[in-house]
Amino acid sequence: MRGAMLHAPGDIRVEQRADPKIEQPTDAVIRLAATCVCGSDLWPYRGIEPVTGPAPMGHEYVGIVEEVGSEVRSIRPGQFVVGSFFASDNTCEICRAGYQSSCIHRELMGPLGAQAEYLRVPLADGTLVATPEVPSDDLVPSLLAASDVLGTGWFGAVAAEAGPGKTVVVVGDGAVGLLAVLAAKQLGAERIIAMSRHEPRQKLAIAYGATDIVTERGDAGVARIKELTGGLGAHSVVEAVGTQESMMQAIRATRPGGHVGYVGVAHGVTLPGEELFFSHAHLHGGPAPVRRFLPELIDLICNREIDPGKVFDLELPLDQAAEGYRAMDERRAIKALLRP
Amino acid sequence: MRGAMLHAPGDIRVEQRADPKIEQPTDAVIRLAATCVCGSDLWPYRGIEPVTGPAPMGHEYVGIVEEVGSEVRSIRPGQFVVGSFFASDNTCEICRAGYQSSCIHRELMGPLGAQAEYLRVPLADGTLVATPEVPSDDLVPSLLAASDVLGTGWFGAVAAEAGPGKTVVVVGDGAVGLLAVLAAKQLGAERIIAMSRHEPRQKLAIAYGATDIVTERGDAGVARIKELTGGLGAHSVVEAVGTQESMMQAIRATRPGGHVGYVGVAHGVTLPGEELFFSHAHLHGGPAPVRRFLPELIDLICNREIDPGKVFDLELPLDQAAEGYRAMDERRAIKALLRP
Repeated sequence: MRGAMLHAPGDIRVEQRADPKIEQPTDAVIRLAATCVCGSDLWPYRGIEPVTGPAPMGHEYVGIVEEVGSEVRSIRPGQFVVGSFFASDNTCEICRAGYQSSCIHRELMGPLGAQAEYLRVPLADGTLVATPEVPSDDLVPSLLAASDVLGTGWFGAVAAEAGPGKTVVVVGDGAVGLLAVLAAKQLGAERIIAMSRHEPRQKLAIAYGATDIVTERGDAGVARIKELTGGLGAHSVVEAVGTQESMMQAIRATRPGGHVGYVGVAHGVTLPGEELFFSHAHLHGGPAPVRRFLPELIDLICNREIDPGKVFDLELPLDQAAEGYRAMDERRAIKALLRP
Repeated sequence: MRGAMLHAPGDIRVEQRADPKIEQPTDAVIRLAATCVCGSDLWPYRGIEPVTGPAPMGHEYVGIVEEVGSEVRSIRPGQFVVGSFFASDNTCEICRAGYQSSCIHRELMGPLGAQAEYLRVPLADGTLVATPEVPSDDLVPSLLAASDVLGTGWFGAVAAEAGPGKTVVVVGDGAVGLLAVLAAKQLGAERIIAMSRHEPRQKLAIAYGATDIVTERGDAGVARIKELTGGLGAHSVVEAVGTQESMMQAIRATRPGGHVGYVGVAHGVTLPGEELFFSHAHLHGGPAPVRRFLPELIDLICNREIDPGKVFDLELPLDQAAEGYRAMDERRAIKALLRP
């Protein structure tokens, strides 16, 4: 099959890879209907994370089950399924508490390389959620979004305790941030402030339910949020970037007793203990347990109540994955969908 | 009146100070029934926090109202009252959300010096809670504990979401840690693991409801907690020290999705963002909003359902405050009560 490989920073190639096979009796192999490039794929692409030799890329996937191992019970060939970036058994105590991305048997999907024609999915019964029927093609981008960016934005909004009566700030206008806006709206937030200085992203944020746009960043951004919230700060802040600046912006924009939900993968972040202590903020986040939310998100998408697929503003054949990376790296595209 | 002053690290003197007076119409002046030395008083006493000239000390207090300002409505002379280390209006949006120690009008009590015969309390209506009647003398230590260490330990347990079915770890065996054990027990925790290597403190922890004692610290302590929790870590961890080691011990002892409640005043702590991200822990804490819990705690004490006053294992006349500091500094005493 063909699949994307990162050879060195900036060097993505779609080339021949071995077809994945059932290796464990709990595995499934799926034929991808669509996959995409993640903001987190840009960290190694930019050389900020080290690249050691050619590595398969991609961890977002939807598709049709081709084959299942002998111990797979609930997932069947022919089903259209959505999974996430961690395979999980969905039965251990951590999974049952809703933290499938910390499952005691979790396996990271990235190294298996979802930017490809086929993908082996470990722990198929726990990891995959089937749609009620094979969806029409126009729903595929939204279901693909559920695989990571929607689930991650949703977790950010849940971790920030977005809900009725709340003012929610979203730091970061990538796909995750934009979908945190959508999530906050669905969760009933009263006011949603998107921090963005990019007009197309501002427009999408407003389409998803943002009531205010703040273009300032850092201290000026915090000051603006305070101004908009009677000097107190927001009840809920979703952090969807992962840098020192964005984390501090999120913490400082939160009122005492408020909640920061942080889902941007932290890179080089250190939090000052004293400031955190006196901030009185709640902090929660980490790799989103997307599996927790998948059944609900699939329902909302299949009932056409939400349209998270709008974050894909570039669609390419898999063979042009390199252009998808370039467009995202240069911020010409919010998110690139790849069709195998 | 006489009051304790810190002149330099290690140099506490009880000397003549001006009698406090009503300065604002919302003030009260109380005659102290008892006051005490706080673990946090030891930071400047040890020179870890800078000492700039002679400073009044003490922020824990119970006593009889002597006089109130013209705008005080609910507090009356003759009442026995308990307050906390931040004066608060108890009416602003932050107070109403339960974060009185971040009240928009908060005033720190420490600089007013509660280790004295009399104390001016700002925002008396918001800050002070009166007992149903003047309590018998044997209840005074417990009511004094409610002023800070009980309220702080209680907040730690609430922030860590201690409750039925939960395994709770308490890091720190000072008065706050011991009272976090008591709080976890009251909140219905199933299992309470106190981390302590001091026998008298272990005994008090067990008297307050600890089911297990762990003497190891740091990585070894974390390993022991994992061993006791099926490899997962605790649901709830209260951090009641405030050092880098104790914070990391708390975070690492928490299972994914679990809660750290941190109430040790952070000194020189920096949290590594990546580790925090992948820990999946909830983090909440800060200066305890003791005022939120005072009505409930006063009830429990006056009904003799809890006996937090047992943390005072040394009682001295105010004039011997210096010995109280020394005993706590040398860990000869858990907590020193001072009688003016």
